[in-house]
Amino acid sequence: MAAETNGKSDIEIASKSSMKPIADVASSIGILENEIELYGTYKAKLSDALLKRLSTAQDGKLILVTSINPTPAGEGKSTVTVGLGQALNRIGKKTVIAMREPSLGPVMGLKGGAAGGGYSQVLPMDDINLHFTGDLHAITAANNALSALIDNHIHQGNELELDPGKIVWKRALDINDRALRNVVTGLGGASNGLAREDQFDITAASEIMAVLCMAENIQDLKQRLSSIVAGYTKDKHPVTVGDLGVEGALTLLLKDAVKPNLVQTMEHTPALIHGGPFANIAHGCNSLIATKAALKLGEYTVTEAGFGADLGAEKFLNIKARAGGLKPAAVVIVATIRALKMHGGIAKNDLRDSNPEAMIKGCENLQKHIETIQAFGLPYAVAVNRFTADSDEEIQALKKWCEDLGHPCALTEVWEKGGEGGVELAEIVTRLAESASAFSPLYSSDAPFKAKAKAIAEKVYGADDVLLTSKAEKQLADIEANGWGDLPVCMAKTQYSLSDDPKKLGRPDGFSITIREIKPSAGAGFLVALTGDIMTMPGLPKKPAALHMDVDENGCAKGLF
Amino acid sequence: MAAETNGKSDIEIASKSSMKPIADVASSIGILENEIELYGTYKAKLSDALLKRLSTAQDGKLILVTSINPTPAGEGKSTVTVGLGQALNRIGKKTVIAMREPSLGPVMGLKGGAAGGGYSQVLPMDDINLHFTGDLHAITAANNALSALIDNHIHQGNELELDPGKIVWKRALDINDRALRNVVTGLGGASNGLAREDQFDITAASEIMAVLCMAENIQDLKQRLSSIVAGYTKDKHPVTVGDLGVEGALTLLLKDAVKPNLVQTMEHTPALIHGGPFANIAHGCNSLIATKAALKLGEYTVTEAGFGADLGAEKFLNIKARAGGLKPAAVVIVATIRALKMHGGIAKNDLRDSNPEAMIKGCENLQKHIETIQAFGLPYAVAVNRFTADSDEEIQALKKWCEDLGHPCALTEVWEKGGEGGVELAEIVTRLAESASAFSPLYSSDAPFKAKAKAIAEKVYGADDVLLTSKAEKQLADIEANGWGDLPVCMAKTQYSLSDDPKKLGRPDGFSITIREIKPSAGAGFLVALTGDIMTMPGLPKKPAALHMDVDENGCAKGLF
Repeated sequence: MAAETNGKSDIEIASKSSMKPIADVASSIGILENEIELYGTYKAKLSDALLKRLSTAQDGKLILVTSINPTPAGEGKSTVTVGLGQALNRIGKKTVIAMREPSLGPVMGLKGGAAGGGYSQVLPMDDINLHFTGDLHAITAANNALSALIDNHIHQGNELELDPGKIVWKRALDINDRALRNVVTGLGGASNGLAREDQFDITAASEIMAVLCMAENIQDLKQRLSSIVAGYTKDKHPVTVGDLGVEGALTLLLKDAVKPNLVQTMEHTPALIHGGPFANIAHGCNSLIATKAALKLGEYTVTEAGFGADLGAEKFLNIKARAGGLKPAAVVIVATIRALKMHGGIAKNDLRDSNPEAMIKGCENLQKHIETIQAFGLPYAVAVNRFTADSDEEIQALKKWCEDLGHPCALTEVWEKGGEGGVELAEIVTRLAESASAFSPLYSSDAPFKAKAKAIAEKVYGADDVLLTSKAEKQLADIEANGWGDLPVCMAKTQYSLSDDPKKLGRPDGFSITIREIKPSAGAGFLVALTGDIMTMPGLPKKPAALHMDVDENGCAKGLF
Repeated sequence: MAAETNGKSDIEIASKSSMKPIADVASSIGILENEIELYGTYKAKLSDALLKRLSTAQDGKLILVTSINPTPAGEGKSTVTVGLGQALNRIGKKTVIAMREPSLGPVMGLKGGAAGGGYSQVLPMDDINLHFTGDLHAITAANNALSALIDNHIHQGNELELDPGKIVWKRALDINDRALRNVVTGLGGASNGLAREDQFDITAASEIMAVLCMAENIQDLKQRLSSIVAGYTKDKHPVTVGDLGVEGALTLLLKDAVKPNLVQTMEHTPALIHGGPFANIAHGCNSLIATKAALKLGEYTVTEAGFGADLGAEKFLNIKARAGGLKPAAVVIVATIRALKMHGGIAKNDLRDSNPEAMIKGCENLQKHIETIQAFGLPYAVAVNRFTADSDEEIQALKKWCEDLGHPCALTEVWEKGGEGGVELAEIVTRLAESASAFSPLYSSDAPFKAKAKAIAEKVYGADDVLLTSKAEKQLADIEANGWGDLPVCMAKTQYSLSDDPKKLGRPDGFSITIREIKPSAGAGFLVALTGDIMTMPGLPKKPAALHMDVDENGCAKGLF
């Protein structure tokens, strides 16, 4: 997302930049013409044949981009990811980017787009931000087909003896719509099925999104879909998608969505954009299939995980990297002067005023995220994502703060200058990536749930303790009885604070994390722990971005930013 | 949809047939390579530039395919449409097919597919039946974005003073899901918005689908979207999409969906598949943009309108043809021995037994549809769509019945033989199309609502009268007060009977049609009159087609039929 518009919006910059035919971009990383499936001239999916051919190739180096706790407008992590990829190519490293797909919820709501910004965007940004190649729609369709098939199973005789009060599968839409958080369905009499409470999640939080992102291939996808829990019988026995016999239909609906999408940046760096779970209410990483393909295709792969290092990066390292056998060579932590001032106590409307003191105070948030990455045993660099309102005084103060503490640091101007603005960062990153590192997850995979949650809360959030509500305790007992107790933990937590209270900025201490609900994602292979007030269906703001969107006289997008 | 499987399923036949690159198919009708936007090798969208270039070209002849009242499995109208297109090409007439896009609801539910059958299919049938180029998903997204924006407008202060009890815009999903027919949204407290009753329609019944199909171009689309009524103020003043200021965002979501999709039949006949309103609960015709483009591209265009001539064809002729200035050259009425026997009183399980007497009795249903087409002043031919279970005796009896009454008739074997099986029909059709005709709609556009509804009920259904419930009377008064009284009428009625009672087969008489509800579709430009028990969200059957769907070891579709 654009940090600053500098007179030009992201869509204006994007529409003026030239793209190469995607077949040429593919060719630049050794992909043959018949190994991609074209979606127009500038988008393609990687074929199964290509993925099979790559399986024996050597892996390149993996760079993970994360950030401090962001402001609501975002800190430009996607922009830095794209800019760093472009910069690595500029210094002679064949680089592939692996990112998540935007969700229409934030696009229509607050953010207006999520394909990088300025001169570090992935293209075609309007397609990527709208329907792209249809992956999210396919996931939505599969999610809701399952809901309809569950309710229909009950309506048509309920052979599997599902308890209508114990259906845990929710409906989903790729939208911000608070009115769908809690609904009652099946009203209007017996011919409309059984009335029951239900909820809609945003598609980014659907377990099917997580399953698609964790799958190794389409067979694994089907196996994982089969393990998804639809609900329970009266005696608490889980009823799965496999029991319902619809894993084939769901896999069929996802047969194209499971293939990674290839696009390009403004400087023609190849980018695989695939899968889009949010990092606050889901596991926040692009698909494993895409990341693995990128590693085979480039000397370097730059990927991002959502929100701050307490969310996306923690899950990337504890869940995705472990499941997929990935080992990052270095981590980039994006910070902005603006967000640091916010963590230093400055109010939203005063963030444009230069205030080095407040910024340095806010660096305690950055310091905590650095310590988290250190705890994982990984080398790191701080990327200061420059905004036009940043004062030189502030930038010098931040650089000095990093230097004094021995934190590798680079000012990145990738929004304004594209790859050229990220060369310093790229040079630091390649140096780090060539040094030895000793990555290990923060908990062992056979630790019990509470030990895992405690490890995350203490080592990543800086919390004193983890509390479970009585509801969560009961759910945990059922989860353990069903044999899922050993699964990794996917925390659902506000992105704005290290704690579970979005108002606690900076580096809070003396707090506990309260887990109010634990849900098994047996297909994805983790337990989702919901903390604080976090909601799996966002709402729209007072002035949604949708109000400014339009098409011009040629049918081209306007108002995406 | 396949009539009979003959040992091979439609997907098996489809997967064994070879496709030409869609650019070659386009080239065969004079479309340049840069005038299409590729969606893979075998699908493309027509560019705006092409549509502009075509606007001054001469129109070919338009053939409309309709049918008798069908059985739940369908009578193969799409199959005959595809087969006739192929046959016309065989006899030297450059022909383009214009059809509707399948909905995932019936695909996952009863039918398993809707892309023709046997050797008269459009390809790639799996893509077309699943997500295709994403048009239906884009419509669903636009529909639900509007719902979220309406509820958000109220939640954020309700500047337009929408009455929460008078919101008429419904949510939509492309699914068969009876549990979503009646729901309560916004539960769980004030932060989730206002609790209110809502309904989900299947996307095929969304007004946005109708708007897309009635639009002349993207500017007209935006104008029509702007006119959609979201709800009313306390004093019954309509609040439109334009009032909410979101017509630009909805148009942006539909900017690609509004472009017709080009695919090919098994014999490489070009087919424009675009828009998919159902004919029972919506206006049942593919997009006007696609039909007009087909007319410019071919000497002949073969199009279909959904279900029997009482539904799709009536609306094609009274609504779409009038709005778009179309004039069909001939109409094909598809009949099957199986459905005629059903209309003759034979139970579902006995339909495979030869029974010429019952079939002849059932011809009263066919006769009524013929009279309807005669009432529109159009030449027609009966196409007997052969199923393998049909006996020679039955076929001869049906041919004789047609001959005795002077109805042009051809046995079509397009399922089994492709275009070759439709040559006789093609020859009749070209003969008819070259004769003079005097097409006129069945009611004048300035007649009041009741006169229009009565004209349809009496002249098309054979009803004695039209009754309005008191609710419908009240709605009509409001509609007239808002100045929409003159719009054409889009009847929502069961497809199984000429009456509004699905159990009355054959040619019922002595019945009235009851209109229980009238809804203005101010954007689409018609009034929807709901009759009988017709529902705008279908349900799934006891054994949904989804249970048989799968992917094979190569990720290819299985179980679509």
